[in-house]
Amino acid sequence: MACHPLNDLTASEVKQAASLIRQLHRDQDLVFKAITLDEPQKDLVLSYFKAQESGKPLPVVPRVVFAAYYFKGTDQFITTYVNLTKNTIDRTERMSPKYHGNIDFQEVDAVEKLTLEDPRVIAEIAKLKLPDHLYVIAEAWGFGSDGVVDRERQYQVYMFVGERGKPDSNHYARPLTFSPVVDTTLMKVTRIDYLPTGTTHETHETKPWEYQKPNEYVPEELDIRADLKPLRVLQPQGTSYSIEPGNVLRWQKWHARICFNYREGLFLRDVRFDGRPLFYRVSLSEMTVPYADPRNPYHRKQAFDLGDIGAGLVANNLSLGCDCLGSITYLDGLVSDPLGEPLVKPNAICIHEQDNGIGWKHTNYRTDRACVVRNRELVVQQILTVSNYEYILAFIFNQAGEMHYEARATGILSTAAIDPGAAVPWGTVVHDGVLAQHHQHLLSLRVDPAIGSYETGNRLAYSECYAMSRDDFNPHGNGYVAKTTVVDKPGGLDLDASKSRVFMMQNDRIRNAVNQLPISYKIQVPPMQGILAHEDSFHFKRAEFGDHSIYLTKYGHDELFSGGKYTNQSRGGDGIKTWAARNDKVVDDDIVVWVQFGMNHVPRIEDFPVMPVEIMKVAFKPVNFFTKNPSIDVPPSRQEVNQSRRVPGTSWQL
Amino acid sequence: MACHPLNDLTASEVKQAASLIRQLHRDQDLVFKAITLDEPQKDLVLSYFKAQESGKPLPVVPRVVFAAYYFKGTDQFITTYVNLTKNTIDRTERMSPKYHGNIDFQEVDAVEKLTLEDPRVIAEIAKLKLPDHLYVIAEAWGFGSDGVVDRERQYQVYMFVGERGKPDSNHYARPLTFSPVVDTTLMKVTRIDYLPTGTTHETHETKPWEYQKPNEYVPEELDIRADLKPLRVLQPQGTSYSIEPGNVLRWQKWHARICFNYREGLFLRDVRFDGRPLFYRVSLSEMTVPYADPRNPYHRKQAFDLGDIGAGLVANNLSLGCDCLGSITYLDGLVSDPLGEPLVKPNAICIHEQDNGIGWKHTNYRTDRACVVRNRELVVQQILTVSNYEYILAFIFNQAGEMHYEARATGILSTAAIDPGAAVPWGTVVHDGVLAQHHQHLLSLRVDPAIGSYETGNRLAYSECYAMSRDDFNPHGNGYVAKTTVVDKPGGLDLDASKSRVFMMQNDRIRNAVNQLPISYKIQVPPMQGILAHEDSFHFKRAEFGDHSIYLTKYGHDELFSGGKYTNQSRGGDGIKTWAARNDKVVDDDIVVWVQFGMNHVPRIEDFPVMPVEIMKVAFKPVNFFTKNPSIDVPPSRQEVNQSRRVPGTSWQL
Repeated sequence: MACHPLNDLTASEVKQAASLIRQLHRDQDLVFKAITLDEPQKDLVLSYFKAQESGKPLPVVPRVVFAAYYFKGTDQFITTYVNLTKNTIDRTERMSPKYHGNIDFQEVDAVEKLTLEDPRVIAEIAKLKLPDHLYVIAEAWGFGSDGVVDRERQYQVYMFVGERGKPDSNHYARPLTFSPVVDTTLMKVTRIDYLPTGTTHETHETKPWEYQKPNEYVPEELDIRADLKPLRVLQPQGTSYSIEPGNVLRWQKWHARICFNYREGLFLRDVRFDGRPLFYRVSLSEMTVPYADPRNPYHRKQAFDLGDIGAGLVANNLSLGCDCLGSITYLDGLVSDPLGEPLVKPNAICIHEQDNGIGWKHTNYRTDRACVVRNRELVVQQILTVSNYEYILAFIFNQAGEMHYEARATGILSTAAIDPGAAVPWGTVVHDGVLAQHHQHLLSLRVDPAIGSYETGNRLAYSECYAMSRDDFNPHGNGYVAKTTVVDKPGGLDLDASKSRVFMMQNDRIRNAVNQLPISYKIQVPPMQGILAHEDSFHFKRAEFGDHSIYLTKYGHDELFSGGKYTNQSRGGDGIKTWAARNDKVVDDDIVVWVQFGMNHVPRIEDFPVMPVEIMKVAFKPVNFFTKNPSIDVPPSRQEVNQSRRVPGTSWQL
Repeated sequence: MACHPLNDLTASEVKQAASLIRQLHRDQDLVFKAITLDEPQKDLVLSYFKAQESGKPLPVVPRVVFAAYYFKGTDQFITTYVNLTKNTIDRTERMSPKYHGNIDFQEVDAVEKLTLEDPRVIAEIAKLKLPDHLYVIAEAWGFGSDGVVDRERQYQVYMFVGERGKPDSNHYARPLTFSPVVDTTLMKVTRIDYLPTGTTHETHETKPWEYQKPNEYVPEELDIRADLKPLRVLQPQGTSYSIEPGNVLRWQKWHARICFNYREGLFLRDVRFDGRPLFYRVSLSEMTVPYADPRNPYHRKQAFDLGDIGAGLVANNLSLGCDCLGSITYLDGLVSDPLGEPLVKPNAICIHEQDNGIGWKHTNYRTDRACVVRNRELVVQQILTVSNYEYILAFIFNQAGEMHYEARATGILSTAAIDPGAAVPWGTVVHDGVLAQHHQHLLSLRVDPAIGSYETGNRLAYSECYAMSRDDFNPHGNGYVAKTTVVDKPGGLDLDASKSRVFMMQNDRIRNAVNQLPISYKIQVPPMQGILAHEDSFHFKRAEFGDHSIYLTKYGHDELFSGGKYTNQSRGGDGIKTWAARNDKVVDDDIVVWVQFGMNHVPRIEDFPVMPVEIMKVAFKPVNFFTKNPSIDVPPSRQEVNQSRRVPGTSWQL
């Protein structure tokens, strides 16, 4: 039996694809960077949906695999599309040298190991004259681009001091001032950069290490507070969701296919509410983190956490009772390893219900009768560790037809050494001798809407509010109106709180039965400062999505990644700006809406040694999509069900 | 033993004050609008704190009561300050006719009753020819101001159709087209306004009622979903907070005095973290809801929910297990009734802990060791019912030194009749024949900071980020800097996301021990569209705080309410703009920061019959106040403690 065309790739499919590819290159050892499902052809999938609904024979939707790999020990980067359905190679391409494969942690491990074994690095370390209980840790970073010597695929390796016998000592509190560069074709250190530590570009040779006190986060090194009482979440009758084969989630009228791949990690397909389509596909498309320090080599510091590395590859193995509370389902993810073998990422996704306070309430002051329901949510979550930093990323559904995308930024700041007493305007001193450079987190969500139907197109529009002119119709000057504008060409768009601008994905061909307005879902996205790097900088050119809160494009096959398909040491020109420039028809058509959000992170000392979560949320909410509050039928909040407990307080005495 | 000067007024103090006032007016029946604690003199309170700390004799801080009342059956509005400590009247004043006392629900009841008994209203109702099972409901609204016939204190009464035997039938789904006006001195209907129902100002006389179908929210009228399983919160070892006499809250290094009065409802005094002062007083100062419909009488529709009515007066009696989940402490509030008697508002405040996901996490990719803590929060909450609408208002503390103010808007939209097929740009049709007019919710938080100390002054500053110029120092164009600007004069200030502008309350005289930066708390406030009404409209003039996200003033005694002390039918000129215009010194002085936020509510049909919560949050977070993450010592999240449960899902087969 053929699997559903939207199912994730299976282990046997990975094996089938790798086997065909190995046959293609019998004389080469391959280092795989990716073996992943190529996006199924959308028109065929929609035919498949239609056939399913009408009970007709299901069309064949070819299962195609995209694979990216190197010939071992060379810089020859190859991409191949394998048609699993036909068991053939669809096409294969030796990539232009401007494209590089992503980073993976097997490679990172190897790079860090060879760095520490390099004689020049060993000589540098010797200059530190470290006491016996300390040792040096290497941390490989994506090289970035500056147009100087960035043609080869390389790593910039930052060096830190660790403590022997304490493998989880926070080495980020003890950064060093030299940084080897590793070429990944040669797999060797090609040079050592010295790092600026003052307020200028000046660097100095490695000097004996001066003691810096630690700043630890592991509990055994800390005086843990003892006055926090346990809080537990119980679902004595089980959970309200079900997960059917193919990772089809059903909960409180919601339907979604939970998907996972090496690059995006967790994403969703075919999201519906009460049977009505909302989104064909929703995913985190890219995230970039450009840094503010203008000095070499920091001017290249810019991570693309999805394209350079892969959210799926760095997804945490989530622990029962540590990463979530209550009754939790864990789903594994499947990726592949450098040998082309399937690799299970255990517990890469967790699913649980949570209570988020009151959902709605009204008290009739005449009768004193209160009606109140709670706001139950379903969380589908992954957590990424990208070297020092973590992202907790979740789709959160509620009973009112709302879907939220929540990103929590936590983990450890990327740090650099700074001279005692020095202060720079592009960073904050977060520990003695430790600078945390300012940086932006710019996330890009890809939303492929199907508001109300897979048959009709959608449009993007925005609502704004304007004061009415003061005249005979508005004699007292209080009047104002809401006005909706349709976005009639692709490109970047901005928020404007001063007009209450709200973007909406609309289906103009399906009207609300009561008020005849187009059924819509609005996008509530927090404002962000667009990327600060100059328009002619590589930071800017690479982060094609980083300058506008909203982008609108027409759907294009293989246009999933707003910063381009290959971001590692990219130079821009392969992403969303190219697609927008086609000037396609985007009104009542197959559109894609890209939602950018994030934070300009000017570090506080409170963000060290591990940063308290900074929570960012994007909401998708129905606007005239239903004919009433879709959560009006949620059961009342009752003590018989909730079994809360009253804790005595004090009371006023009459 | 004298009570703490920051304690709320007690019942016996209310009685003492009322008794002295009654002696002042022996020949009059009084109708009390307010008997409340006058703000204790700040310099004396600070001396009291100092004496407490040093163990010296405590100074006497006079307990002063502010009372506002009418001579019954007249428009004579009087305010009196009673010194309870001396048992004397400090001063009393017959107020100018431009000031009016607030609305209270005893008066509302009386107005609604007399309206329905008025012969002209009865005649109007007869014209409806309602079927026997339906009847008419009157709902009294604040009259507002337009400079026309608004000198007398009046109510605008909106009329709706209810269903007999169903006292909680949602009458807002059946609005009528006439509206009596009641004079509160005469306590009689003075005229009946006809309401516009089309797209123009045109009105028509009352016609026989045409059937409008109901739109109910009570569960017995609905088909309640059956697939939601219970979710319970347990704290088997009890709660982590304590509440000491005087409603002193202690939790996870936090200290705050929980206070309550008739006008502000819940507010906080003397907020500290780890013994270090942060805020002298934090309160919701005012909230205004101006409506967008330019037509008579809707052009006067503008509620001031605190000043016109009183958050404490309309605070809900919170129910165990319905309004909160888990282990909950309820505190009563004390107000007074129209006779001047103390009136307990039972369970007006609830306090509970909640889990808000992960607090911080880091995984060392070298050892795979994850350290993770949960984000425990403490919620101190009240819920207001203001006729049709509700606000859920909470202070939320966390372990990372952050305080959040959360407002959830819910309840029922204020509705008006609209002709079938008509559409207007100042409202949305939310049910057949029912218009919900656009309106703004503009909330104003008053923050009296004491960042780090009660001894030194504070300043308001804002941080912004700017690209560095592209030059030899920034050759690759990636550089950017953060720049801090001190606000050196009082007045209104705006957000600017395009510069990452963040406002901070700073203590320049106390520097961070590690990085020497001024200790600060930043204000994260969501952007809002300022009040849309014209600058020369009464809506605008009355909502003095409605045009800027931030206001800065110097502390002034009795300057608690940004829209003025008397807002009912006010015309502006007594609020924050007056205080700002003094041009006081505000750098390193005793400053007050006013934080405005809210929503421009363009109703969706999904907001009816009861609106799903719209959540707005203001955060106060430490910036270089501590020397590391203040939640670094939170115990690790562990399954042994959390006792979560694994629910089987599916898994990828290799």
